[in-house]
Amino acid sequence: MDPTEKLVVNTVRTLAADLTQQFKGGHPGTAMGAALIGVALWRHAMRFNPKNPDWFNRDRFVLSAGHACLWQYIHLHLSGYDAWTLDALKKYHNPDFGIAAGHPEIEFPGIELTTGLLGQGIANAVGLAIASKHLAATYNKPEFPVVDNRIYCFMGDGCFQEGVGQEALSLAAHLKLDNFTVIYDDNSVTVDGSVDLCFTDDTSMKMKANGFHVVEVTDGDNDLHGIISALETAKTTRDKPTLIHIRTTIGYGSRKANTGSAHGAALGDTEVTYVKEQFGFDPNKKFIVPQEVYDYFAPLKADGAQHESSWNELFHTSYAREYPKEYAELYSRVYANEAPTFDASLLPPKNELPKAPQATRKSSHIVVSAFAPRYRSLILGSADLMESTFVHWQKKYDEEELEAMVEIHLAPLGTYAGRQIRYGIREFAMIGVANGLNAYQNGMLIPICSSYFQFWLYAASAVRMSALQGLRFIGIGTHDSIGVGEDGPTHQSIALGTFFRALPNCNLLRPADVEEVLGCWLLALNPTSSHTPTIMCLTRQAVPHLDGTDRSKVAKGAYVVWESHEGTVPEITLIGTGSEVALCLKVGELLWPRRVRVVSMPSQEHFIRQTKAYREDLLGVGKALVVAVEAWGSYGWARWAHASVSMHTFGLSAPQETLYKIFGFGPQTVADKIGDLVSRRSRKDGVIELPGVGEFDELLVGYAKMHAGPHNI
Amino acid sequence: MDPTEKLVVNTVRTLAADLTQQFKGGHPGTAMGAALIGVALWRHAMRFNPKNPDWFNRDRFVLSAGHACLWQYIHLHLSGYDAWTLDALKKYHNPDFGIAAGHPEIEFPGIELTTGLLGQGIANAVGLAIASKHLAATYNKPEFPVVDNRIYCFMGDGCFQEGVGQEALSLAAHLKLDNFTVIYDDNSVTVDGSVDLCFTDDTSMKMKANGFHVVEVTDGDNDLHGIISALETAKTTRDKPTLIHIRTTIGYGSRKANTGSAHGAALGDTEVTYVKEQFGFDPNKKFIVPQEVYDYFAPLKADGAQHESSWNELFHTSYAREYPKEYAELYSRVYANEAPTFDASLLPPKNELPKAPQATRKSSHIVVSAFAPRYRSLILGSADLMESTFVHWQKKYDEEELEAMVEIHLAPLGTYAGRQIRYGIREFAMIGVANGLNAYQNGMLIPICSSYFQFWLYAASAVRMSALQGLRFIGIGTHDSIGVGEDGPTHQSIALGTFFRALPNCNLLRPADVEEVLGCWLLALNPTSSHTPTIMCLTRQAVPHLDGTDRSKVAKGAYVVWESHEGTVPEITLIGTGSEVALCLKVGELLWPRRVRVVSMPSQEHFIRQTKAYREDLLGVGKALVVAVEAWGSYGWARWAHASVSMHTFGLSAPQETLYKIFGFGPQTVADKIGDLVSRRSRKDGVIELPGVGEFDELLVGYAKMHAGPHNI
Repeated sequence: MDPTEKLVVNTVRTLAADLTQQFKGGHPGTAMGAALIGVALWRHAMRFNPKNPDWFNRDRFVLSAGHACLWQYIHLHLSGYDAWTLDALKKYHNPDFGIAAGHPEIEFPGIELTTGLLGQGIANAVGLAIASKHLAATYNKPEFPVVDNRIYCFMGDGCFQEGVGQEALSLAAHLKLDNFTVIYDDNSVTVDGSVDLCFTDDTSMKMKANGFHVVEVTDGDNDLHGIISALETAKTTRDKPTLIHIRTTIGYGSRKANTGSAHGAALGDTEVTYVKEQFGFDPNKKFIVPQEVYDYFAPLKADGAQHESSWNELFHTSYAREYPKEYAELYSRVYANEAPTFDASLLPPKNELPKAPQATRKSSHIVVSAFAPRYRSLILGSADLMESTFVHWQKKYDEEELEAMVEIHLAPLGTYAGRQIRYGIREFAMIGVANGLNAYQNGMLIPICSSYFQFWLYAASAVRMSALQGLRFIGIGTHDSIGVGEDGPTHQSIALGTFFRALPNCNLLRPADVEEVLGCWLLALNPTSSHTPTIMCLTRQAVPHLDGTDRSKVAKGAYVVWESHEGTVPEITLIGTGSEVALCLKVGELLWPRRVRVVSMPSQEHFIRQTKAYREDLLGVGKALVVAVEAWGSYGWARWAHASVSMHTFGLSAPQETLYKIFGFGPQTVADKIGDLVSRRSRKDGVIELPGVGEFDELLVGYAKMHAGPHNI
Repeated sequence: MDPTEKLVVNTVRTLAADLTQQFKGGHPGTAMGAALIGVALWRHAMRFNPKNPDWFNRDRFVLSAGHACLWQYIHLHLSGYDAWTLDALKKYHNPDFGIAAGHPEIEFPGIELTTGLLGQGIANAVGLAIASKHLAATYNKPEFPVVDNRIYCFMGDGCFQEGVGQEALSLAAHLKLDNFTVIYDDNSVTVDGSVDLCFTDDTSMKMKANGFHVVEVTDGDNDLHGIISALETAKTTRDKPTLIHIRTTIGYGSRKANTGSAHGAALGDTEVTYVKEQFGFDPNKKFIVPQEVYDYFAPLKADGAQHESSWNELFHTSYAREYPKEYAELYSRVYANEAPTFDASLLPPKNELPKAPQATRKSSHIVVSAFAPRYRSLILGSADLMESTFVHWQKKYDEEELEAMVEIHLAPLGTYAGRQIRYGIREFAMIGVANGLNAYQNGMLIPICSSYFQFWLYAASAVRMSALQGLRFIGIGTHDSIGVGEDGPTHQSIALGTFFRALPNCNLLRPADVEEVLGCWLLALNPTSSHTPTIMCLTRQAVPHLDGTDRSKVAKGAYVVWESHEGTVPEITLIGTGSEVALCLKVGELLWPRRVRVVSMPSQEHFIRQTKAYREDLLGVGKALVVAVEAWGSYGWARWAHASVSMHTFGLSAPQETLYKIFGFGPQTVADKIGDLVSRRSRKDGVIELPGVGEFDELLVGYAKMHAGPHNI
């Protein structure tokens, strides 16, 4: 490094030491150790316009090691992003907080996705890389590379150890994403000390085994030009993503270098002074950025403006002239401030839907096959259960559609213009990738992801990250209860739905039949859902098409599907979801001559958003005995119901019909249980006294000693 | 293969075809493709006694590819396990179900753990291998190898792709578990077709990069002796686990071989006939097991008896004589039918506990340091957050204790006799390993695992598998709410606790202070919890030591910590958990002169098990307005409370004090909110009319548009 370069990297290091020391917390170590990497990336490798962080054709950067955000913030400041002033940086860990959050957050300039839960950032970056490849393959024309940006991901040892990181890296290499560069900051230190204490993989060899091109830089503390050169090599490598494996020293410049204590705590005043002295900075001054350092980064502003204006010329003038149809399409996708809308009239009306009982997973395919060919926004995919979850395109289309489709499958199976991704048996990475796809640019891509419902627990942290960031995917979880049958308790969900219901901004849907499946899709595809992930729970087993279901009412969250005495206030309200709505209808008949109302509640989340009057009228609050019937656990139903018929243990391996019988979901069993409850609560005059809060009744059927295995019912 | 061997493997294949065809479902493909592997394992490699499946020093086998269970069941049958009769096999997928479950289940003979959720079985097997190494290092003496069994794991492509599988394999190699052999059934086909469509890792190279010894067998369809020889090689390999990479043909013998349709569906009658004809079996007969095949396996019974009697002689006679102290200890650990009991008097009484406010994560260390050195059952560990979660041993002990400890750290850092495992940044594998440790023999090892609470979501599926199997670990989840502060929303739990509360047989504990922390540990260590996993949610921030807390009442799930008017029926009951109990006490005082009761509810699970009378008296059901105060989401509180003060969005990155203020957890704010509610519900005579079911009130504070990111409060 020449003297200026040394001054630049040491400025990054002292700034990190000062900023963490200011509030005696945070993560100085990586910010100091990876100073050269940051300079190489922002100053030399990446193409972006600091004055317009959202410029469509920018290179994109994801900090998978999110705790090192200060390092990113410092480089965003030096690169000239308006929002990232020195004052903004100083609010890191400040009670008067600002944009310098403890981990990077999507809503702030220069941050592509919120990260911090290790490993997931890699999957997010893979999603961005797929998005970029896909749009390039769809819209680029000879001599018109309107989409040619690159994706960079910075990861540490933690991300490499996390399973989701390994899944994502394996997938990236499989997909031959040569627009994707991973920088592995190998500082050999984690929170608990030397990484050797828990991790001894040959990381470069492992990445080669995945199919990465691997470049090693052995002195990441001093060899700035080695890093710059490695980043250039990555740009010209074809058919493989590149891993740049860089050895650095955590906390470089401090006597705490190479220790766990440099990772997640401020260095202390003495040590900060020592660092400044080492680097020839005045120990009495704080937050020093010499003018030479700003000067070093200054060309980025002009370069960025130039990048954007060249691209504007290319896209908005030349491409627009030569390819007006493609221009118009891409323009509207990139610049439309609205989520795409879907033409509901493409779906068959209720009276044209299959009348025979049908699994809701199969019903879902009606929507997939109607919308997927027509809407380029939709990126289908499955974690190796394409056929079983019915998240795949129909095999045959008419000629016109075929032309529009280009290819169904994403490369390497088809071309990158394809929109069917085979994620492999990597559920967690699938949703991490989905988050990247959706975050690419204003939600212009909507991933549809699928697996058995129980496997969504593997991906739950990525679902949470989608909800937290206001991103969107449409998730299909099939085989959604003990209805899965013979596969047994491992595959039978009891409690998982509860998590997604409890998660803020997550839309768990459980449709009763084919009509409600259509309603659920329309809700998930509605612009009002454009910042909300959806998970649709679908059956393996066939369920009847019910007379009373109505797609247009699904968005209410719950509505009446049947009443024994129409127009009267019910004595008993049965709430069913999914496959149990049909059961409730049978139970309702068995309870005659009681006044019974059956409510389908495909979405607790949407029901809660209705007016109090709607909710109370629908359920007959204060008037009717309300019983929820759902082949999941009872948890959460006490908010709406006085009692529930639900699962109290894990399931069993037996055919579905056997299980419904064993666990008490036969119509007569449920009717008897409710009859018992009614008798217990009936006054002499026949009026049912409603249980109060705190008296929720679990109508236990098949109740087991929990701890002695699934067969002790 | 000689003619007998051919007959044997073809019998396995036709039996698999018949058994799946019988009920037109299940997974024939792997059972047929891996026939040779099964014969090599059960007949030639593994040491066990089919007449005593629980013999302590048996080799242990885990089928990570659990859907291939039929393959295992057939070999258990042929090996002479009493329970695994041909009739038992025929109940696979039968309405009159039996032990031949759709995935292997822990409670049946010859099955070590329930598997089926891909990848996790590898982690379970690593746990068994650690347990075996650990007990060997603790009890073996020169010429007395009383623990010298090996652990085998069978995995397919799915397990290899899953992140948890990768985490576990990396950890196994790091720990140099040379008693561990992984058989990789590389049949190149998954549900959706050729594995190449989604997975192109160089698997052998990747495993070498992890640190495995890798042996390849290229013709797993015919080369029985190659497989046997590879298994022998593994036995003599030191300091590395072995991967035997075997190429097989899924559905071998059928025309559906090498296709996805052989994976998860019966072959069809025509195809079953074809298979039988191929192998020279009578197509008109079903479930054929020629006597020669039984004869081939017959020596296993005598061999098994011999293995066990030799070991009995070694252990119960020679070892008992030479090492009576060690014998007595190991004997009681292996053969005691009771869970270990812990001496509560080792913990300081309430009046000797720290009086200054202290983080509950730190308080937990009082128990760890009192019990960990004294009880060999406890195996501590952390996913790289040892210091931060306080799950580590004190550095200094007196001489006697030091002698008993041998070494704190497990090999390779210490010796295998060590009991502190550094799991690395691999939360999911950590809990998968914990399940294996606990399943090793009658729960004789109790893993204590730790990470930040939010990272438990990464491991949630393994937690579920622990609960499902009635296994036990003690989990420590620190930084359990927005109280984590500056790290921001990614690290702040809102909904996660709900999942564990809803999960059957899972004990989520949230102690209020140091006294309750002790109570939670005593509950988790109590023999009544020996088939239940526990997760303890602990604070990062300091909380006061409260006068009213009582360790002995924690097991009730909830109890009174304070009353404004002792001995009277309250008008308002405040339920607090964890850090919010102290808040409730302040709120209670602010509500004076109302009659207020404050209840601490460290465990919803245990509260629900109390008598109806206890529950209703405690909360004042039907008499008091009940309000839950918890810095998590409100989901689930409607069962016990009329209203809640809780989180309605994700959190923010700011210091803890700032966040509590922003999100409405200041005492005056809470008191005002409750005051509002009381006013709204008060009749003219001052009596509060209690809201009914369906009228739950979320006392929204800091409510946000959910979808627009964490900063739009």
